[in-house]
Amino acid sequence: MFVLVNLKTYPCDPVAVAEAVRDVNETTDARLAVAPQAAHLERVADTGAETWAQHVDPIEHGSNTGHTLAESVANAGAVGTLINHSEQRLKLADIDGSVQAAERAGLETVVCANNPAQIGAAAALGPDAVAVEPPALIGTGTPVSQADPDIVEDAVDAAESVDNDVSVLCGAGISTGDDVVAASDLGSEGVLLASGVAKADDPTAALEDLVDPL
Amino acid sequence: MFVLVNLKTYPCDPVAVAEAVRDVNETTDARLAVAPQAAHLERVADTGAETWAQHVDPIEHGSNTGHTLAESVANAGAVGTLINHSEQRLKLADIDGSVQAAERAGLETVVCANNPAQIGAAAALGPDAVAVEPPALIGTGTPVSQADPDIVEDAVDAAESVDNDVSVLCGAGISTGDDVVAASDLGSEGVLLASGVAKADDPTAALEDLVDPL
Amino acid sequence: MFVLVNLKTYPCDPVAVAEAVRDVNETTDARLAVAPQAAHLERVADTGAETWAQHVDPIEHGSNTGHTLAESVANAGAVGTLINHSEQRLKLADIDGSVQAAERAGLETVVCANNPAQIGAAAALGPDAVAVEPPALIGTGTPVSQADPDIVEDAVDAAESVDNDVSVLCGAGISTGDDVVAASDLGSEGVLLASGVAKADDPTAALEDLVDPL
Amino acid sequence: MFVLVNLKTYPCDPVAVAEAVRDVNETTDARLAVAPQAAHLERVADTGAETWAQHVDPIEHGSNTGHTLAESVANAGAVGTLINHSEQRLKLADIDGSVQAAERAGLETVVCANNPAQIGAAAALGPDAVAVEPPALIGTGTPVSQADPDIVEDAVDAAESVDNDVSVLCGAGISTGDDVVAASDLGSEGVLLASGVAKADDPTAALEDLVDPL
Repeated sequence: MFVLVNLKTYPCDPVAVAEAVRDVNETTDARLAVAPQAAHLERVADTGAETWAQHVDPIEHGSNTGHTLAESVANAGAVGTLINHSEQRLKLADIDGSVQAAERAGLETVVCANNPAQIGAAAALGPDAVAVEPPALIGTGTPVSQADPDIVEDAVDAAESVDNDVSVLCGAGISTGDDVVAASDLGSEGVLLASGVAKADDPTAALEDLVDPL
Repeated sequence: MFVLVNLKTYPCDPVAVAEAVRDVNETTDARLAVAPQAAHLERVADTGAETWAQHVDPIEHGSNTGHTLAESVANAGAVGTLINHSEQRLKLADIDGSVQAAERAGLETVVCANNPAQIGAAAALGPDAVAVEPPALIGTGTPVSQADPDIVEDAVDAAESVDNDVSVLCGAGISTGDDVVAASDLGSEGVLLASGVAKADDPTAALEDLVDPL
Repeated sequence: MFVLVNLKTYPCDPVAVAEAVRDVNETTDARLAVAPQAAHLERVADTGAETWAQHVDPIEHGSNTGHTLAESVANAGAVGTLINHSEQRLKLADIDGSVQAAERAGLETVVCANNPAQIGAAAALGPDAVAVEPPALIGTGTPVSQADPDIVEDAVDAAESVDNDVSVLCGAGISTGDDVVAASDLGSEGVLLASGVAKADDPTAALEDLVDPL
Repeated sequence: MFVLVNLKTYPCDPVAVAEAVRDVNETTDARLAVAPQAAHLERVADTGAETWAQHVDPIEHGSNTGHTLAESVANAGAVGTLINHSEQRLKLADIDGSVQAAERAGLETVVCANNPAQIGAAAALGPDAVAVEPPALIGTGTPVSQADPDIVEDAVDAAESVDNDVSVLCGAGISTGDDVVAASDLGSEGVLLASGVAKADDPTAALEDLVDPL
């Protein structure tokens, strides 16, 4: 089970959360990673935690100002990237371009989408994984695996029917180990979560709770 | 074979082109339609030509200013709509929303995309048809069916592997009947074209040439 | 006092509202106009009511699909256009381009913005008028002239200090004649309103109430 | 004279250029700074060179994925930020929001725009400076101060008439000391440049040439 902690632009200490991710990763069969802001990538990667970018742009080296270049985040220590998060929706052509840019830079890719039809579309672009996150549940504390189990199963079916090699993750409202187990039972190979860990007083304890039932 | 003439914002007389589309349509087994600007839909539909919208927004009735509502273009006489044209690229979530809006209003849908991977993605959203248009060839006069035949065949394969019910059109640089025949031979069920007819001195003659070899 | 009724994509009969605008306009010193969707412009203009577009794109005749060309809305009967409405926010460079496109086509321009600083910026682009609409009040029924009178006075000052020739309108929550009078007292030369008229059972009565105290 | 070197996403060594900026800064009355990608900010700031961000988003701490938070770039060592670069055009409301976000985080602000009217608009939002960069000249090697001197003088006038406290910079095609002197003579208090230094074989020599005639 892959557990990716998205730090968004929360006012947390990215290094402290990364250290928790690194430490708890060593105690479990689950695979834990952390996605900080671009400006924090190097410091976070230096902790030894598996580090992901939150976004890469569909660009190459060249005249681009204020963009996120896949090669630069890889060089800063990221090994993967989210693409098309619900807070960073992209044009279809740009999702395609971002997946290609990430692959060019050796980054693993997770393309987010908010329903099974869009998950099928995302899978057709050939990323490593897709993640279904119903927007209405993000940040609610109500886990998708409980509030809308069908959407996870349908997303797994949609991705499978398009490209069997694409893994399916899910997210939105996930904060406990039971949520992660439920997601796994529905066919999800991983979870995206954010506030449950990033805003926790004790990120290590929060992560231990998450992976404990696995 | 479906031939859709996109009038873009060309300085042509939309009613004159629509009358040519209507008249030539009666002389051929091909199906001809015309896509004017939103402000011209009613006048164009009044000619009796099959009328399409160039775009609809992923919205419903409500507080939206400057948007194109599917119900309004249907009410003005459109029977179908382009979505995600290369000159009007949309976010993945909005292509999904626009397809749903169009279907809600009874409009036929053609989702454009610029390569086979994106065509597969577009097909996963369940439109009636997809149209592959390599951006580099648009407006060049070099037909996609000749300059890049593989892209058409690969698009047909990509759409078929995702959803067998989705038709595949192609576009970019198409201006002669031979181009249309070549597109058909590659598995395309229709073509999108624009300047070849919209900018012709004699649209009727241009359309007759297009459908003559079919 | 200029009263511009924005029909948005409300499920109203645009011709019926336009007829009410036309009829009430003849009974008052106020100037009334109506802004329908692009697909309804011709039918609305045919009523004889002063007709505005809700948006024009920063483009010229050419290869643009799904866009709104200033010349086309002028040709359909519009005499003016909103630009940068809060539901259709544009890039700064595109507001500039849309103002220029509108002027090229002989359309009067009202650029919307949501606070005095942005009103000053909008005025610097040389439109005929600017309109301050605090987003938080749009559609609430709480009139800006009552809930946030300072924002109107500050907008008037901001526009004046940049370009004395630019008129200032205001909008958001305006539904009664008292609201219009209050707006006028704050230095506003007009109001934008929408649901108060567009959703009224009797648009003529709603408009009569609006202009009665003027 | 302020000389800001924008590294864009060029394939240069950001630390090497930053060290050149730092070293040459000590030899001149001009003020030199460097704007790397977000992922490189910390390493660049660690050189001691004055470090700028290329962009900040109009956001606060919270649920934003893939965005650039002003506080984070300040924390990484940036002391200022570009906003609305021609390669990162923003909506008017978002330029306003980004200026406010930057000021909240203690960052100096330069808002870019491509003609005098837009420069006046940018100045109305209250940044520390504005920068006029005619898009057609960017990356050409033809300096704006020579190809289009009027645009610089008109931009200075436009900014001054809106807010006398806003400095005016210029950019596009600037690569020699003569270009910088010419810009200064036209009323510009600084220059933006990119490829002339970032792509130079010897950034130190390139910077020395730039500041030599000052």
